[in-house]
Amino acid sequence: MRNIRIKITYEGTRYQGWQKQDTSDNTIQGKFETLLSRMCGEEITIQGSGRTDAGVHALGQIANFHTGCTMTTEEMLTYINQYLPEDIAVVEAEEVPERFHSRLNAKGKRYVYRVWNSSIPNVFWRRYVHTVPEELDIQAMKEAAVHLLGEHDFKSFTSTKKGKKSTVRRIDRIGIDKEGDMITFIYEGNGFLYHMVRILTGTLLEVGKGKRTPHSIPDLLLAKNRELAGELVPGKGLVLEEVYY
Amino acid sequence: MRNIRIKITYEGTRYQGWQKQDTSDNTIQGKFETLLSRMCGEEITIQGSGRTDAGVHALGQIANFHTGCTMTTEEMLTYINQYLPEDIAVVEAEEVPERFHSRLNAKGKRYVYRVWNSSIPNVFWRRYVHTVPEELDIQAMKEAAVHLLGEHDFKSFTSTKKGKKSTVRRIDRIGIDKEGDMITFIYEGNGFLYHMVRILTGTLLEVGKGKRTPHSIPDLLLAKNRELAGELVPGKGLVLEEVYY
Repeated sequence: MRNIRIKITYEGTRYQGWQKQDTSDNTIQGKFETLLSRMCGEEITIQGSGRTDAGVHALGQIANFHTGCTMTTEEMLTYINQYLPEDIAVVEAEEVPERFHSRLNAKGKRYVYRVWNSSIPNVFWRRYVHTVPEELDIQAMKEAAVHLLGEHDFKSFTSTKKGKKSTVRRIDRIGIDKEGDMITFIYEGNGFLYHMVRILTGTLLEVGKGKRTPHSIPDLLLAKNRELAGELVPGKGLVLEEVYY
Repeated sequence: MRNIRIKITYEGTRYQGWQKQDTSDNTIQGKFETLLSRMCGEEITIQGSGRTDAGVHALGQIANFHTGCTMTTEEMLTYINQYLPEDIAVVEAEEVPERFHSRLNAKGKRYVYRVWNSSIPNVFWRRYVHTVPEELDIQAMKEAAVHLLGEHDFKSFTSTKKGKKSTVRRIDRIGIDKEGDMITFIYEGNGFLYHMVRILTGTLLEVGKGKRTPHSIPDLLLAKNRELAGELVPGKGLVLEEVYY
């Protein structure tokens, strides 16, 4: 059996997220499994590096699948892109060692969240930004972000219900850049919990609006209580940019 | 009567262009006249700096209208943006002298045409680019563009049927920049004929593909024959960026 690794880009607007659901096939994973099974003439299961939620986009989602298919990876790339809908594309396809697993081998990820900070909507970027008309204190958000760096229990920043799985993660970088009216939040870390990037961004935005202080973040981490963190900002502002191996 | 000048941005994908049509109100001008008439409580006619075709976008379309309405321009801006569909927005509104005419006073315009030069589709920019998978010789296109600068009769580069109107225009700048797989064609001039930017771009792309030489351009201008120029590339790659006064 060959193991094929693909790099995928998609606009998440129309989809219910990455992960296949029983009740609907309107998922990225579902689209791929249907298409790859037809291409290979066998039932294909595809493994993504992680789920993305409904409406979330990807520039560099990584996935892999096993197949007995004899096509070259170049032929696969052409075939897949020909039949994918226009809001999903495969950017790269390559054969990898059989033990490669896109989720288990992932060492880290980079996510980007975009905020359009104006009372005038941005019609061109509207599917990829969360619009915040209020003035935001960039410096205060940067100070707050510093408290989130490193290894912490991010239980306050996830929507996951009680479970036995660890909620400890390490954030290596939070970049906050403003260019014109566009604010870009860049998150790099070894892994992100369910809704974590969107709750982190919602919390930082509340700091930017003056509703919280940067110094309130350490207590918020220690509280391990989702109720105390900021709002869950919309999925459409989020892009999974890169997965590191 | 007050004269109000507005700067408009729109994604043209869903519309049949700027100019109001009798048979359909699915035009940008139509949307504005309906909305402004309701806002002002009187019938409003809006004058644009020029038409944009079906599918063509605008970052800085300029338009003006006369009204007896007593709202401040700030109030108008808020009102209009509240009721416009999400693919149209007003960026600025200001009161101007009564003689200001957005079309007659325009001294020049800047258009941008974007080509995505890859066999892998760009899912995020797909509504704003024309995808060309073939390799393109940027240097040859730049050499060809030089021959188009200055004042010429651009009859070969317009779809306008025979008419008495002058087809002489002046192009001040054609910039061709490649960043990654994105090629941006920037056109600045004192005015552009019907379909002119799209036929110019189609012709330059044929130079880029090696189907024409840069040196064939002067003869093409002299021929004054639309049949001899390149193809009309799709409207979706085109943006009216700025109107100069």
